[in-house]
Amino acid sequence: MTEPSQNPVPLSALSADQLAAFLTEQRAAYDALKARDLKLDLTRGKPASSQLDLSDALLTLPTSTTDAAGVDVRNYGGLEGIREIREMFADLLWVEPEQVVAGGNSSLVMMREVLVDLWLKGGVDSERPWGQEEKVTFICPVPGYDRHFTLLEWFGIDMITVPMNDDGPDAEAVARLVASDPSIKGIWIVPTYANPSGSIVSQEIAARLASMPTAAPDFKIFWDNAYAFHHLTEDEAKSADILSLAAAAGHPHRPIMFASTSKITYAGAGVAFLAGSVETVKWYTGHLGKGAIGPDKLNQLRHAQFFGSAQGVRDHMVKHREIIAPKFAEVERVLSERLGGLEVATWTKPTGGYFVSLDVLDGTASRVVQLAKEAGIALTPAGSSFPKGDDPRDRNIRLAPTFPAPAAVTEAMDAVATCVLLAAAEHLSA
Amino acid sequence: MTEPSQNPVPLSALSADQLAAFLTEQRAAYDALKARDLKLDLTRGKPASSQLDLSDALLTLPTSTTDAAGVDVRNYGGLEGIREIREMFADLLWVEPEQVVAGGNSSLVMMREVLVDLWLKGGVDSERPWGQEEKVTFICPVPGYDRHFTLLEWFGIDMITVPMNDDGPDAEAVARLVASDPSIKGIWIVPTYANPSGSIVSQEIAARLASMPTAAPDFKIFWDNAYAFHHLTEDEAKSADILSLAAAAGHPHRPIMFASTSKITYAGAGVAFLAGSVETVKWYTGHLGKGAIGPDKLNQLRHAQFFGSAQGVRDHMVKHREIIAPKFAEVERVLSERLGGLEVATWTKPTGGYFVSLDVLDGTASRVVQLAKEAGIALTPAGSSFPKGDDPRDRNIRLAPTFPAPAAVTEAMDAVATCVLLAAAEHLSA
Repeated sequence: MTEPSQNPVPLSALSADQLAAFLTEQRAAYDALKARDLKLDLTRGKPASSQLDLSDALLTLPTSTTDAAGVDVRNYGGLEGIREIREMFADLLWVEPEQVVAGGNSSLVMMREVLVDLWLKGGVDSERPWGQEEKVTFICPVPGYDRHFTLLEWFGIDMITVPMNDDGPDAEAVARLVASDPSIKGIWIVPTYANPSGSIVSQEIAARLASMPTAAPDFKIFWDNAYAFHHLTEDEAKSADILSLAAAAGHPHRPIMFASTSKITYAGAGVAFLAGSVETVKWYTGHLGKGAIGPDKLNQLRHAQFFGSAQGVRDHMVKHREIIAPKFAEVERVLSERLGGLEVATWTKPTGGYFVSLDVLDGTASRVVQLAKEAGIALTPAGSSFPKGDDPRDRNIRLAPTFPAPAAVTEAMDAVATCVLLAAAEHLSA
Repeated sequence: MTEPSQNPVPLSALSADQLAAFLTEQRAAYDALKARDLKLDLTRGKPASSQLDLSDALLTLPTSTTDAAGVDVRNYGGLEGIREIREMFADLLWVEPEQVVAGGNSSLVMMREVLVDLWLKGGVDSERPWGQEEKVTFICPVPGYDRHFTLLEWFGIDMITVPMNDDGPDAEAVARLVASDPSIKGIWIVPTYANPSGSIVSQEIAARLASMPTAAPDFKIFWDNAYAFHHLTEDEAKSADILSLAAAAGHPHRPIMFASTSKITYAGAGVAFLAGSVETVKWYTGHLGKGAIGPDKLNQLRHAQFFGSAQGVRDHMVKHREIIAPKFAEVERVLSERLGGLEVATWTKPTGGYFVSLDVLDGTASRVVQLAKEAGIALTPAGSSFPKGDDPRDRNIRLAPTFPAPAAVTEAMDAVATCVLLAAAEHLSA
């Protein structure tokens, strides 16, 4: 199905006749693709069933219902979560247990709660609630995570983009923006194996972000470490220790870290975490306690017993890698074979996380997604990695290869390549 | 330990000498109580361990991980909850499945989310977000649930109290208030076995609340049916069907209903529900979807398998009744024996729910709670059933007898009676 590229010459170097022939060829390939009547989905970063199966021991846990502190986890209470799961993830995230809150099944919900609290009450270092500011702006490194942008948009928060580079957000651009504009209250960062680029924020960039002067006294780094342990190679990235860096720079309340077991155990039934300065944790649980009694401690104990230890989490992640690394390898293989040398696309080769970020020719991403859709392959909408779905160059497509079976990944990537080539040929012929 | 009252004459009818003797007697009794060095807790409406044990079959459920719609409940998605648990509770709450959202482990969290959405965005029938109104006021029937008031206070919502009568809130007073004041946006009602009075909102009162004209076009009834199935007798109260009543009266979006399995299965690890008009449900999930991917569907399936059917829920509640009804009977027995005829206190005899509401002599509730505390018996702070903890008559005390073991309930109520008598004697002697 996947064949080496017939034409290693850059597409733009073809003569008009050659290009016309190429376009005809791609139209035929696309028609053949459509005729296959595929139904494939590469839209979301969801674990495959085989990954979820790895955690099915959870279904008969916990084997007891009392936590290490002697609390009956079946009953009410314990806003901050049970001690043993907080200790385990404090270890994994290099913070103290007092800096960690274990919550429900969604770190995104915790992010929303934090934004609600900032909006209605202000942070530990705010002059007033954010909702009382004339304008609130966030810096959004792009490409980034669509749900982050959707949430900001819901609050009516303005978004300014900066490039997400291989070593993290463009720190020069960020530092320049935050230095002078007090409406800029935050930045959203997926520091390790970023969604969708796979970038890893370097120690230097993290230090810069942690220490840079900001016009807003209550500037926040939303450090969404969703893929902290989600390595695709044996060369395991270590996330920069943003809390220590910020504390050392005199801005202990600047970062708020989020993580979860959504892509460690069950995507819909895991445990989410928030970490920050002790004051931040008190601030968060203080507001939380006005409208919550406690998280599902039973599920936390279930997870603590399942993992056994922080090392248990790391060991478990190796099993995920064994399942998904071959899918990422297949993405790389097919894209290289089909698109290599044609100069119609570039794509990331992530060493962790859940995504491949594909950049096609400027102005063709929407067309590729549309072509794919008509051929039965659902891709994340073009532009979704940008605030309000607006990719100014219309070139970025997020590929999510974890959920489909391996054969389907091959098939889908081959189809995507066909669509990329047809869109490029159309574009260059226009 | 508990003795019939020595003195069936009203305390206020005693002569000065008799009262002095009575006071001396009560001081001695209180000193004897203190000497016993008790450590008892009647503060919160928590299920006892033996009640939680009734649901321990949950610990090895679910036995499969696919819901009735064929969805893998371990993975992401399904904002509105799984179909089978929605159908089950729609049946129990007399609504359609399309009117029900099954959420996480806390209905209080859902109430907070609804208030956040109303505050930031406005309801389906709002002219503007509530946060943009000059003032927002809620009517709070008292005595009521402290966490409701705490949440309103957090938003800066003003609270006006009306009496909670045996058949529900004073509907005349409510109707008068809402007719003229457009700042009054809502009322909080625990319709069945109210916290703490045990009152049941009658069909007539519910119909009045559902149909009354309101100056605010987006007036909401927060119908917190936390104890809908929590009967203490075989005479099971049926909650008024507020959604149908409101729809029939032309105000379909007025009520928003909340319920949960917190006091059916596990207090900290149950499933919460929201119900309302189909538009309300769409409004809620629409906003929820901006910052959430889905609830813990696995726990929902666990519950659906555990109950089997709506009747399974009703059957399960009988087992709770068998455990807690004797505790409520003991509260009644001890208070009657110790305080009957003395005219120093009245208390409710609930037929369901989790509380007994005790009214002592005006001006003595705080003293009773303080005396109890010094004798090792923790009671809910005096006034906690009133907004901002302010009971203008300082007479109400909420008793929560479910959590302690039966012998401890007897001991605690005997101790409370001693404190009530001493405080009354002190008060009348002053």
